[in-house]
Amino acid sequence: MISVKEAKNIVLNSVQEFGVEEIPFLKSVGRILKEEITADRDFPPFNRVSMDGIAIDYTAFKNGQRAFKVEGIQAAGSQQISLYNSANCIEVMTGAILPKNTNTVIRYEDVSIKNGIATISINAITEAQNIHAKGKDGKVGDVLIKQNTKISAAEIGVLATVGKSFVKVAKQPKVMIVSTGDELVGVDEIPLEHQIRRSNVFTLVSLLERLHISSETAHITDDKPILKSKIERFLQEYDVLLFSGAVSKGKFDFLPEVFDKLGVKKLFHKVAQRPGKPFWFGENESCKVFAFPGNPISTFVNCLEYFYPWYYKSVGIKVEEETAILNADVSFKPNLTYFLQVKLSSRFGHLIATPISGNGSGDLASLVKADAFIQLPNDKADFKKGEVFKIIPYRSF
Amino acid sequence: MISVKEAKNIVLNSVQEFGVEEIPFLKSVGRILKEEITADRDFPPFNRVSMDGIAIDYTAFKNGQRAFKVEGIQAAGSQQISLYNSANCIEVMTGAILPKNTNTVIRYEDVSIKNGIATISINAITEAQNIHAKGKDGKVGDVLIKQNTKISAAEIGVLATVGKSFVKVAKQPKVMIVSTGDELVGVDEIPLEHQIRRSNVFTLVSLLERLHISSETAHITDDKPILKSKIERFLQEYDVLLFSGAVSKGKFDFLPEVFDKLGVKKLFHKVAQRPGKPFWFGENESCKVFAFPGNPISTFVNCLEYFYPWYYKSVGIKVEEETAILNADVSFKPNLTYFLQVKLSSRFGHLIATPISGNGSGDLASLVKADAFIQLPNDKADFKKGEVFKIIPYRSF
Repeated sequence: MISVKEAKNIVLNSVQEFGVEEIPFLKSVGRILKEEITADRDFPPFNRVSMDGIAIDYTAFKNGQRAFKVEGIQAAGSQQISLYNSANCIEVMTGAILPKNTNTVIRYEDVSIKNGIATISINAITEAQNIHAKGKDGKVGDVLIKQNTKISAAEIGVLATVGKSFVKVAKQPKVMIVSTGDELVGVDEIPLEHQIRRSNVFTLVSLLERLHISSETAHITDDKPILKSKIERFLQEYDVLLFSGAVSKGKFDFLPEVFDKLGVKKLFHKVAQRPGKPFWFGENESCKVFAFPGNPISTFVNCLEYFYPWYYKSVGIKVEEETAILNADVSFKPNLTYFLQVKLSSRFGHLIATPISGNGSGDLASLVKADAFIQLPNDKADFKKGEVFKIIPYRSF
Repeated sequence: MISVKEAKNIVLNSVQEFGVEEIPFLKSVGRILKEEITADRDFPPFNRVSMDGIAIDYTAFKNGQRAFKVEGIQAAGSQQISLYNSANCIEVMTGAILPKNTNTVIRYEDVSIKNGIATISINAITEAQNIHAKGKDGKVGDVLIKQNTKISAAEIGVLATVGKSFVKVAKQPKVMIVSTGDELVGVDEIPLEHQIRRSNVFTLVSLLERLHISSETAHITDDKPILKSKIERFLQEYDVLLFSGAVSKGKFDFLPEVFDKLGVKKLFHKVAQRPGKPFWFGENESCKVFAFPGNPISTFVNCLEYFYPWYYKSVGIKVEEETAILNADVSFKPNLTYFLQVKLSSRFGHLIATPISGNGSGDLASLVKADAFIQLPNDKADFKKGEVFKIIPYRSF
């Protein structure tokens, strides 16, 4: 049995590339940018008026002039006009190009306009004020968004501004999620006493949706020849297979044997952790196989702890580790990494992790009460309130 | 001019209900649950074997017996069988119903089976071990998910388990996002010198998508009669209108006047904040109007600071405030609430907010460098490294 750290290293050393595709920019939120986005013009592209008011030649103001005849209006979206007489002014609107022969904008709040004469009511005017100078935020050719950025609303605005109506992003892996276990029936069915409804595959679908990966699901009965023929086809058609169940010591836990027969190389089986210990991971030339134990919490935490980082690294992004402060003493004796469910809260800039009580890896409903796992290392048994550990949050807006 | 706090109170006092709809459970991630989810059976629904191994009658073990003849196998998904002779055992699989007349499970790791006889190799066996008892996690009728919960992958698993293939969620508001400003051209166009491409509406579309709200967009030219007739129609067709631009002091900032003529009641205009000061907010009987200033950072921060909480309250959820520790001294003299762009990082359970340098509210590209705003109150001018303030994060996985 290997440690969580070793298991994670093996997973991260078998990342995969899925290629690049070009998609409409407005569909790209959550996807990973696979090109550099550069400025097609200076940012701003012209000396841009940043306050509604009047534009003047500062020399006139400096020489003591306070009243300026209004020569015209420079609206946003209109072609640049010129100030013909440097003793006059032009009314200017936010977003407009600064008129020629002017270099300073005084906002309406500091001006009174009567009979076509604008009189400046304050003395604290500085040259070039209220002008967002051409190129101040960036020069044509500057990199505005780096490759391998996860696209959010912030990036969408920049993509629109530089005219990238289509954008290159990492292709998503083609994923099949498979449940096994003859005790499982469909969500729409009424289970018999010894049966339960399928749920882990849907949890996995939703966890992958958070990564903007769409996936397919299948259920295979606990029958070796059927498992073999179906999985053989899936191995050819998908980049990743996720399984839930059939990897432990049970008589009908056929998956490791079936993988072996199909030439999927085992990279490890069993990790020193709770929950999620019987996790099996392997690969062939074209496909990765994450076979999670069938208990709901095991499947859930292993998807977050192994599949997520594997995906992030595969598409080229780094995700910062998050830590939180344990809010209660915890004792855990087994020599295993303990993934404990916690409720997070933010207090005075501190992230507090309060353990919730669950009834072990089968207690699906306990996931609803928490919003993260805190990862308690295997090298000690007593964890004190106030100590800091890595967390894996699973809710977010 | 009112304060940010007053403005927010007014916004939060004019929340709206959009009704309830029933959708397929697997499409419900990110939506707000509008019914209680209760257990349709006990959780687990039967005494569930939680380890692969053998099931025995504990009395035999207590009386010193260590070798048990294997009577049969209880697979997961098979009907419950019975142990006929209490001196024997039954092999049991994780997820199976516990066989009748047995009450304790010993995992395979602690048993050796030879010629149909299972010999237990350890003495530390406790009655009822490795059984997830019927009803331990919940009883039939227990509330598993409360109304007004934001549905995540954790809830999806529970919905599947209790057979909720369709689920009642809050309807989303019907939203129209409108840009104004004659300087704007389409993303696919090549702007003339004095023009720029539309970007704020797409940023807003993406910010709303984070809330799983789909929206429509329109552009209206800076012409009063056209604005009036188009907005009149939008007021009838949508629950919410978001505008970007035309609410400041410019000659072509027609929106406040047009809203007034159309009978939209102004609730406030201008908030003591930077950026985003000229924000206009109003309503009629059926529609809310958030008219944000046209600078990209102003539109962005006002959507997060006002529209988001308004939406959360409208659909019935509470969102906890997050705080972070300022990582540099900041000086800001104007008597305004200052929304400063920061980069967040997690260190030893502390959330650290490092200010990034931007060039004011027009500096769209600066949004890419940050991932939150920190909200610095207007009652002081000097903010010290180490002080804690509210943050508004805008990136998340």
